[in-house]
Parts: sequence; structure tokens; C-alpha cells
Amino acid sequence: MSDDVSRGLSRRRFFGLAGAGTAGVLAAGAAGGAIGRATAEVPPAGGAADTTGAVPFTGAHQAGIVTPAQDRLHFVAFDVVTDDRAELVEMLQAWTAAARRMTAGQDAGEVGAVGGGPYDVPDDTGEAMDLPAAGLTLTVGFGPTLFATADGVDRFGLADRRPGPLTELPAFPGDALDPAISGGDLCVQACANDPQVAVHAVRNLIRLGAGVVSVRWSQLGFGRTSSTSSAQATPRNLFGFKDGTDNLKAENTSAIEKFVWVTDGDPGADWLAGGSYLVTRRIRMRIEPWDTSTLAEQEQTIGRTKKAGAPLGQRGEFDPVDFTAQVDGEFAIPQTSHVFLAHPTNSGTAILRRGYSFVDGSDGLGRLDAGLFFIAYQRNPETGFTQVQRNLRTDAMNEYVQHTSSAVFACPPGVTGDDDWWGRALFS
Amino acid sequence: MSDDVSRGLSRRRFFGLAGAGTAGVLAAGAAGGAIGRATAEVPPAGGAADTTGAVPFTGAHQAGIVTPAQDRLHFVAFDVVTDDRAELVEMLQAWTAAARRMTAGQDAGEVGAVGGGPYDVPDDTGEAMDLPAAGLTLTVGFGPTLFATADGVDRFGLADRRPGPLTELPAFPGDALDPAISGGDLCVQACANDPQVAVHAVRNLIRLGAGVVSVRWSQLGFGRTSSTSSAQATPRNLFGFKDGTDNLKAENTSAIEKFVWVTDGDPGADWLAGGSYLVTRRIRMRIEPWDTSTLAEQEQTIGRTKKAGAPLGQRGEFDPVDFTAQVDGEFAIPQTSHVFLAHPTNSGTAILRRGYSFVDGSDGLGRLDAGLFFIAYQRNPETGFTQVQRNLRTDAMNEYVQHTSSAVFACPPGVTGDDDWWGRALFS
Ligand code: HEM
Ligand code: HEM
Repeated sequence: MSDDVSRGLSRRRFFGLAGAGTAGVLAAGAAGGAIGRATAEVPPAGGAADTTGAVPFTGAHQAGIVTPAQDRLHFVAFDVVTDDRAELVEMLQAWTAAARRMTAGQDAGEVGAVGGGPYDVPDDTGEAMDLPAAGLTLTVGFGPTLFATADGVDRFGLADRRPGPLTELPAFPGDALDPAISGGDLCVQACANDPQVAVHAVRNLIRLGAGVVSVRWSQLGFGRTSSTSSAQATPRNLFGFKDGTDNLKAENTSAIEKFVWVTDGDPGADWLAGGSYLVTRRIRMRIEPWDTSTLAEQEQTIGRTKKAGAPLGQRGEFDPVDFTAQVDGEFAIPQTSHVFLAHPTNSGTAILRRGYSFVDGSDGLGRLDAGLFFIAYQRNPETGFTQVQRNLRTDAMNEYVQHTSSAVFACPPGVTGDDDWWGRALFS
Repeated sequence: MSDDVSRGLSRRRFFGLAGAGTAGVLAAGAAGGAIGRATAEVPPAGGAADTTGAVPFTGAHQAGIVTPAQDRLHFVAFDVVTDDRAELVEMLQAWTAAARRMTAGQDAGEVGAVGGGPYDVPDDTGEAMDLPAAGLTLTVGFGPTLFATADGVDRFGLADRRPGPLTELPAFPGDALDPAISGGDLCVQACANDPQVAVHAVRNLIRLGAGVVSVRWSQLGFGRTSSTSSAQATPRNLFGFKDGTDNLKAENTSAIEKFVWVTDGDPGADWLAGGSYLVTRRIRMRIEPWDTSTLAEQEQTIGRTKKAGAPLGQRGEFDPVDFTAQVDGEFAIPQTSHVFLAHPTNSGTAILRRGYSFVDGSDGLGRLDAGLFFIAYQRNPETGFTQVQRNLRTDAMNEYVQHTSSAVFACPPGVTGDDDWWGRALFS
């Protein structure tokens, strides 16, 4: 496709130029690095906004949470394999430096994939060399096991820094969790508009973590399933329904403050204020029974129309839900529908959903192994995900889904100054 | 990102309009269907060409072979679970009709995801409802087992139609093949510039094949690893090297005729002329040792420079390889390098490479399970893939790769008239 030509040419034309002045690159440090990665010079014409530019890495909060959801995901959970706290800290510092560079569209390290001498090991793996930042965000989280005591030893001297809400989630009816793809001491959520950029970033962090961490599990998401900004069109999940319509949106700052960010006075706020809890659930979707159900059954299950995404009984996607509306003497939105049970009116809370669709090959029984890698951010998992999920006990959708993995992480606040690093307040 | 807004708006604006006159939609039948999918109205401005438009479905050859490689892949191999030839034929006819529609950016069936009555089962699963054709191609292939005799019974009466070259590939040194993700009676290669469009297409074919076929294995590819047209910039594979520089390119029609298409006089040409053989190899890449090797070691292994992709001893990516050039009394391109051994001069043949990078979670040993899903098209697998792969016996790259799956399929020629269907000449 000649799109590739023009993209390729513009990349090559600007190859090696530093990123200063590049549209969308706002992060400090973007102009550094003699052997920088290519950067997009201007947003594409025609009014379409830039999906190639950089998202600022520094700030009060980590990027990748209220950042408008990018198209692709590579999520990875790690076990820490060292018992040396200093090594772990060093790695987090090295990760932060690399994340700063990569989110600005640069190589993971100073000399890059082709710098240094021929007998040096490159400090970047190179597969994103010609690619722009592509909206890359890297979001780090700490799992409950990082704070644990193992064989009577406080693993990293963090036992008394664990905030109460940072514990494994309770069991829910119907769970079919595989421990091999659940949990983790650390996680990195890489989101970008180009999957190669997300994969490249994760891989270079893995490389920097050699000997300190080992990959526990990883998940690719091929398409976002929720909008997280009112400026985004609502994508569809694998049930064919619009997803994210009534999500917490970045623009709703008061709800974000209330439901997403850990705040002074909350448990662990000494290091976690400005951060958030991340819950991941790999949810297998039973595609075959869903695909043989009627349109009415599907719409009654969700509580919205398939085409427009309107609440049942209404016409437009963004019409407010009305749980009192009746059709033929029945509630238009059934009380067993997903939307009825998940809505704040009935769950009593709200979460920020930021999930991705996956297809992970087939299941050995002649079916695709496909579903939703559910990601939620909240101020407290107990009053966030867990409260909603408990309320979904009678959800008609349960017939069509099965949760196969679970994890929870505390994501520290954003990195601010040039010397700051992921987890500094926790480890100081 | 506000890109999503403008895209979303233009889709919504044109939602429900038939595709006639839409840029890039050339396929017959694109204008049909009252409840058509959204279609992009004009190519994006700014000189960037259209990655949203449709690729013609009909033609002398199937699309998806010399079609400039799209960005994303969903490949699926099927077992046929019926022993009724008529059922198989019916399914191939239904698949062809659905493929015709979906590659034009329409729903899989007439009534779509929201047509018919509320108590009808929709005939499209709906997750691509708002998405354009996105360059979707669907390419079908028939595996050797389809022509087999099982328990003394000729499965579908095709035993004497099997062309000689359509047999399982021979074993190669170093192979570590997993039979569960190898082989297959049928395959569909879905390529598109939007992964959701590729996944949607495969899923709807699976749905139409219920009771006739069952998914044997499936593979998602997140990024193409080869250019197949001289109009495309060369992408990079997970070793960080440009891949596809010296590929057979669509524009080189005489080489394509010679090396890709089955031609009158070839075995099986009565039904396969105009078709091609498809070889897939899932190749795990040993990322960690590669990432700790020096730049010199990497470049000597491939035979090209990492940054520019130039043959060693030359400067530009497209400079011709010169296997006689020397540096300090040694051949510039080592005789154990991948390019030396794979080049037509030394392999005596050529293939069309059309592979994709994959990351399939982690391997349980703390590493990503990542690599290249290698796809090659050729006129004869024996004088194509097998001949090259045999010549790679001494390839220095073997230290860094391991083949974990293998399959071969005969892809019939393109569908032509309105009544034509995939495999008609084979089953008639
Ligand atoms: C495969 C699993 C799931 C699918 C397919 C799914 C799908 C949907 C859809 C289509 C909507 C309506 C559109 C919208 O407002 O976003 C929705 C809403 C929602 N979902 Fe889910 N969902 C899934 C799992 C979950 C889980 C596990 C939770 C939390 C425990 C959850 C929480 C919510 C919430 C809070 C809303 C908004 C309800 C409202 O305010 O109206 N969902 N979901
Ligand atoms: C993970 C595995 C592989 C990797 C990373 C890889 C990578 C590369 C690279 C970087 C090039 C040079 C650029 C180009 O001309 O495209 C190349 C060329 C080539 N490769 Fe591979 N390759 C792999 C496997 C294979 C296999 C299995 C075959 C066939 C058996 C193959 C056949 C070729 C051919 C024919 C060329 C063109 C050589 C020339 O004409 O100069 N490759 N490959």
C-alpha cells in the first residue's frame, strides 16, 4: 500500500533527526540522543489527529490510565527472581530511564540498536527503529506478593508498606482461574497505537530486567474494548456491542478524582497518593453460544441495543439509562442485564475500564480461545472491581463468559523530575 | 485520541450507505446489502494512501498472495469433521459468499448483525459493524489430509485429485514441531490493516462452518515482517532487521509467474492452475541470546547491516548483494549468513515471503514466546520452501531460531464469476 511508502519516506527523511519540535512530543528529554528513533514530523493532514505522536511520560499520575485508550496492548507480569533489594531498585531506575526514552519515540538506551562499536551489544533491540512513538504509554504496578514475607523473611523489607487494599481478590462464583497466568510481583502495561511499539517496549524492559525479574505471564490485546475519553468513538467488543459508552471518562475529572486516584488519607497514601489500583481479569468469551443466540437475547443480556448501543427503551447511544422505563409491562432494561447490575445506581460505585480483546489461538476443542482482557483502574479494589463483580452475580452475561486469570497491582503515582523513578517513594 | 473521533464520525456519517463509489472498493457486489457495514468515503488526505479501502475479491488469482502485505494476520487451520462431501461443498459455497461480502466491507450475511427480527439469530457477529474493509483479504487453502484415504475410505473422493507436490514437508534438522499446531485439512489466511477486521472475518467463517469444520489451530500475527511490493517500506522483524528487501515483489511479474503460480502442465493444474502452495512455519525466535549478542555478530548472522539493511560491504538497502566482495581478506557476506544461503544464487530458487511477527504470551520459563509466523507462497513446495530450507542447514541463524509448527496447503486460483466458489474446479 502506498501509505507505507509515504510513511516510510517521511520516517526516513527525518531519520536521525532529534525529536525537538515534533508534534505531540511533549515529554522532557525527547530531543536528546544522537541516534534517536524516527519521529513523525507533523500530524497527518485532513483533520485526522496524530496517532503517531508521543504521550508525555512525566506527570502527577502515570500515563496509560486516563490517557485515551490506545489501540493495542502488551501486558506483562513479572516475578522478581532476586532477593536483593538494591538490584530491584536499580532495575526500576533503569526501567524508568528506558521508559522515559521509549515513550518519547527513542531507543531504550543511549547508543541504540546500532550505536557503540560493532563488538558492543546494542542497548536497543531495534525492531522499532523506524517507528514513531505511536502514543506509547508504560504503566508500572506492584503486586501484593512484592510486599510478602516468604519463609519468615520480609522479601524486600516492604511488608509494612503494603496498603490494606492490596491483597489478592476474593474468589467469585464461576471463576476458573489458572494460577500460571494470574498474579505477579510487578507488572507493566504497554499501550500504543502500533503493536510493534508496545512489544518493543516490553521486550526492552525484559532485557533490562535480566537476572532481576522473569516473565510470569504476558497478554497481547489486539483491539481496545473501551473508550476512556469522550473524544473517542466507542469501540465494539467481541460480542459485537459498543463498549465504554458509560465508562468513567477522562474529561469527568471529579469522578476520576473520586473513583480512580488514591488520595491523601487513603491507606498507603504516603507512597501511593496519585496512584491507582489496577485489576486485570482475562475473560474467555463463549463465542459459539453467543453467536447462536437471537438479537433479542443478546440485547436483553447487555441491556443496550446492538447497533446504536442505546439503553433499551432509548434511541441514542448516550441517552441516559432509565431503569424505570417499561415496555409491555416489563422493565425495558432487565434487572438481570449487565448494564443494570453494573451501573453505579445499582453497584453503588464506578471503575475506569480500559480492556482489550484477545484471540490466543484455539482451545484444543475446535474453538477460538478468545475474549476480553479486562483492565480496571480504581481507588480501591474492594470498593471498585470487587464491589461491581459481586453485584454481577446474577448477570445474564455470566452464561457466556468465564474468568481465567486474575491479578491486582498498586500503580504508584507519576514520575515527576528528571531524577525521579518508578517506586521511589515506596523504596525510600 | 481525536483521530478516533474523526474516523468515528466519518464512519457514522456513512453508516448504512451502500459502498458504491467508495474509494478503493472495486469488488463486484460492494454496493449490495441494505444493512451494509460502514465504508470509508475518501482516502485520508495528505498523500497517505488508503489502508481502509477494499481489495478486490475476484480475479484470476486469490487475493492475499501478491497483494501488498497488510499489517495484521489471523491465520486458522481447520479439521473437516463431517464425512459428507456435499456438506463440505455447501460450506465452501457459503464461505465464498461471505468472503465476497466481508472483503467488500459488508456484513457476513444479508441481514447482518442487527437485521431480521429480534427473534432471529443475526447472520453477522457485529464486532466489525463500524469498521471499513481495511484491506481485508481471505485466502483459502487445502491441506494434504483433505485428499487422504482414512481407514481405507477416500475421505471426500479427492484421492486422485491430489497433486504430487501436496504432501507434508520433510523433517528438517532442528525441527521441534508440535503436531497440535501443525497441519490441517483447510486453512484461511485473513490479512487486514485492522486486526478486528481480520478476526471478525475468521470468526464468521468459523460460525458458518459449524458442524462441518472445527478449528485445529489459529495464529495471530501483530505485524507483517516482509514487504511484498516495491511500493512498501520494508518492515523490521523481531531481530530488529529489515525483512523483505530481496523478497519476490508483486511488481516483478515475470518472477511471480515463474516462482509463485501453478501453471498449465504442472501437477494438479486441472484445478490448481493460477493457484499456489502455501507453507507456514511457526518459528520461535530465541530473543534472549540474540539480544545479548554484539552488533557485528548479528550483522554477520544475517549478512546485512542492521540500520540500513544494506548487504554487508554495500551502503544502501537496495544495493545488489555481492558475494565476491571482500573486507580484510574475508568475504563481506559470510558464507554461513542467512542471506548468503537463502539468496537465489545459492539456493537456486525463489519464494514469496509473507510472514508476521507474533507474541503468544510467555513460555513458562520466564521468557516471551515470540517469533515469526513464516508464510511462503510458491509454485511447488519441493522446489520452493523445502529447497531453501535445506540450503539453510548451515545458517548461522539456526542458533537463534526453532521451528515449532509446520503446514502446507494448495491454494486454488481466484474466484471469478458471480456463481464461482472456492474449490469449484476441485470438487467438480
Ligand atoms: C467479557 C466480559 C464483559 C463484556 C463483554 C462487557 C460488556 C459491556 C458492555 C457492552 C457494556 C455497555 C456499554 C458501556 O457502558 O460500556 C458494559 C458496561 C459496563 N461493564 Fe461490562 N463487560 C464485561 C465484563 C465486565 C466486568 C468483569 C465488569 C466489572 C466487574 C464490568 C463492568 C461494567 C461497568 C461498570 C459498565 C458500565 C455500566 C453503566 O454504567 O451503565 N464489565 N460492559
Ligand atoms: C525467524 C526466522 C527468519 C528470520 C528472522 C529471517 C530474516 C531474514 C532477513 C532479515 C532477511 C534479509 C532481508 C530480505 O531480503 O528480506 C531474509 C532474507 C531471506 N530469507 Fe529469511 N528469515 C527467517 C527465516 C527464513 C526461512 C525459514 C526461509 C526459507 C526457508 C527464509 C528465506 C529467506 C529468503 C529467500 C531471503 C532472501 C535472500 C536474498 O535473496 O537475499 N527465511 N530473512
